[in-house]
Amino acid sequence: MARTASLSGFPEWLPQERLVELHVLDTLRKTFELHGFSSIETRAVETVGQLLRKGEIDKEVYGLSRLQDDEGEAAKSDKADPNALALHFDLTVPFARYVVENAGYLAFPFRRYQIQKVWRGERPQEGRAREFTQADIDVVGDGELPFRYDVEIALVIAEALSALPIPDFRLRINNRKLAEGFYRGIGLTDTAGVLRSIDKLEKIGAERVAELLKSELGATDEQAGLALKLASIRTEDTSFVQQVRALGVTDELLEEGLNELEQVIQAAVQRAPGKVVADLSIARGLDYYTGTVVETVLVGHEQLGSICSGGRYDALASKGNRKFPGVGLSIGVTRLVSRILSQELATASRSVPTAVLVALNTDDSWSAAQDIAAQLRGRGIATEVAAKAEKFGKQIKFADRRGIPFVWFTDDDGKHQVKDIRTGEQVDADPAEWTPSEEDLYVRVTTA
Amino acid sequence: MARTASLSGFPEWLPQERLVELHVLDTLRKTFELHGFSSIETRAVETVGQLLRKGEIDKEVYGLSRLQDDEGEAAKSDKADPNALALHFDLTVPFARYVVENAGYLAFPFRRYQIQKVWRGERPQEGRAREFTQADIDVVGDGELPFRYDVEIALVIAEALSALPIPDFRLRINNRKLAEGFYRGIGLTDTAGVLRSIDKLEKIGAERVAELLKSELGATDEQAGLALKLASIRTEDTSFVQQVRALGVTDELLEEGLNELEQVIQAAVQRAPGKVVADLSIARGLDYYTGTVVETVLVGHEQLGSICSGGRYDALASKGNRKFPGVGLSIGVTRLVSRILSQELATASRSVPTAVLVALNTDDSWSAAQDIAAQLRGRGIATEVAAKAEKFGKQIKFADRRGIPFVWFTDDDGKHQVKDIRTGEQVDADPAEWTPSEEDLYVRVTTA
Repeated sequence: MARTASLSGFPEWLPQERLVELHVLDTLRKTFELHGFSSIETRAVETVGQLLRKGEIDKEVYGLSRLQDDEGEAAKSDKADPNALALHFDLTVPFARYVVENAGYLAFPFRRYQIQKVWRGERPQEGRAREFTQADIDVVGDGELPFRYDVEIALVIAEALSALPIPDFRLRINNRKLAEGFYRGIGLTDTAGVLRSIDKLEKIGAERVAELLKSELGATDEQAGLALKLASIRTEDTSFVQQVRALGVTDELLEEGLNELEQVIQAAVQRAPGKVVADLSIARGLDYYTGTVVETVLVGHEQLGSICSGGRYDALASKGNRKFPGVGLSIGVTRLVSRILSQELATASRSVPTAVLVALNTDDSWSAAQDIAAQLRGRGIATEVAAKAEKFGKQIKFADRRGIPFVWFTDDDGKHQVKDIRTGEQVDADPAEWTPSEEDLYVRVTTA
Repeated sequence: MARTASLSGFPEWLPQERLVELHVLDTLRKTFELHGFSSIETRAVETVGQLLRKGEIDKEVYGLSRLQDDEGEAAKSDKADPNALALHFDLTVPFARYVVENAGYLAFPFRRYQIQKVWRGERPQEGRAREFTQADIDVVGDGELPFRYDVEIALVIAEALSALPIPDFRLRINNRKLAEGFYRGIGLTDTAGVLRSIDKLEKIGAERVAELLKSELGATDEQAGLALKLASIRTEDTSFVQQVRALGVTDELLEEGLNELEQVIQAAVQRAPGKVVADLSIARGLDYYTGTVVETVLVGHEQLGSICSGGRYDALASKGNRKFPGVGLSIGVTRLVSRILSQELATASRSVPTAVLVALNTDDSWSAAQDIAAQLRGRGIATEVAAKAEKFGKQIKFADRRGIPFVWFTDDDGKHQVKDIRTGEQVDADPAEWTPSEEDLYVRVTTA
């Protein structure tokens, strides 16, 4: 199963690998729907103007142009043309557009999940593809959105990730207000600049971040030291509040952020114990976050990068004076599934959906075999019918090669038997009644 | 709900419309898996060389180019460059590539379903979008593929379509061997040319097709007349065989085609009565079909065009001398769903997955409300918790506006009650036991 994609950065799964991905997608969908999130999909393309609306262009975007242009319409792949079409690079920007366009048809707070492919023309590497699937949940309000949804979103994601066949994980949560208030409180007014530098902490280390803060933002040694001290705080409970207070900085926004983060961590300690940490180094590069920010690591797979990120955005979407604040998180499904497959963290119980192959006694018995298959399918048992009346040994081999556990035989007198080809056990069976064990009825995906 | 897409040809659904689409997709998936088809997805992009491999370029293809090209890699959207990337315009060509690339990992005959978006830069019109979802099933053999799979594929699709909330439909089936053998038998050797002309029958009428046959292919009046007579044959049973024979043409390939089509129709009369007709006017423009060809109309919506097409292709995929013949059909999901929605042929029983809103007594009761919600979710009941302890009337209004049928109340003494806000009925309830009726548990989609 160790194959490389024929086009670098565009992974494709074998059927048995796809079963693992389907299990991940089905599990996420089920959890999201149980929490009342509605499914939507947005088109794969946005206008370049829409994608760059927030000035945010740190993603490599794929532009579109029609290869045969016989209608006189100009082929468009021009970065400078805001009406040119491009593939979306995330699901948040398209969702914001969707909300604004359809505001008159939606009931707010609007809860949605969205599971789709996105594209980025980045240099492919482990954990980073050019085409990949994201699974997002967001809640968006009309005018205002209670902070409680920040807490809820984190809990739903913790529940969703807990249901997946993946190693243990940690949501690392911070709050922009806390960080920005703190920077302001120590006299660093370019808070976005400080965040961008702090965001590099894991990549380049504390010393070089301190240099950046001093050289690029004019921070003093003391300011840089305090900013780094803040970023070093990491607690599994609400004790981060005391640790921040001990740094002796006072600021109104800082207080608001401390209070918000405390609420999230407090709820998580109770409702998702061990899954969440307050991590004051988390910055998230994107401009549009205004409060809660989240990244998520797989324990023991930290170098994979964040498998679920997002946060609060109060100004991503607006329509005239009407604002639509939101909070959301995005799971990197392809990143997760790639890791599950490459390290065989989970496997499917068989390689095809089929539970039963109905063997053919004679070539003329195909229609009768279809009748048997229809009876089994009627009870939810996935069934195939052999195409040719080969020797039974060959038909069993066919089932074995496809990974089908049971073969059904009907003799000339109409007597039915079913064979479990894994054990060799063969028993009389009635097509109107026989059912495999719960374990064999559907493909199961379990952690290795 | 009558909205127009903000980008012409790129439809997007409202959450309650998406529920109808999800029902269609889930129903198709369930039917396909019950018949032992494995799910796969292929990447959205192919190389231009791959897409044009069969010389077939009657689709408008979207090319890709990276908007920011900072790695020195040339921006590619050049039709002449076979390595340029473009969005796939169907799922058959990518599937053929996938089979060839992964032949060593697949068990043949390989049965797969594939439900994905495809893109065509065509002029949008009713029933024709630029981005749309197809649902394909195919069976592909290694070297050979028994004809029986042609019969099976037609029956599976008839079963799948019968399970959808759509009007009655007809699979119109023909056979390329039958048509080509017949043309050859009457002395028209450019059989592909004749097929292309016959393909226009519905658009331009018999007279103009006759002219085309004579002017472009050098047919005599008699040859043109016979070709059109063949194309006029349409029977719900196997009587087409006699009607073709009555035309007095003999040809080996014609005989083979007659025999094949007879098998399909015979099985369909028995196993999918009323759903299939032999229609000898069906040509299918694409070159790669070599036997069975299928189009499907919705009865009463014929002008919508085919909602499910495909057929047998013996030479689409090959690897050196190794050939992978296949047979498959593709359902136009977006075309179907657009029609269902625009004519309100089916509706969802509510607009959100949520069955229950747990109301808040006080703002402090949020965590206790989450405990109740968790109990309900544990039994598969989709549940939301109110974010604010507004007046009960306001919380009920909130549920009503979102389309949630039940509101859960817990008073200060811990007494639970659940209200059906449609009837106003309010009863005592135990969060560990209460369950809504089967009808209210999940969103149901039913024909209007």
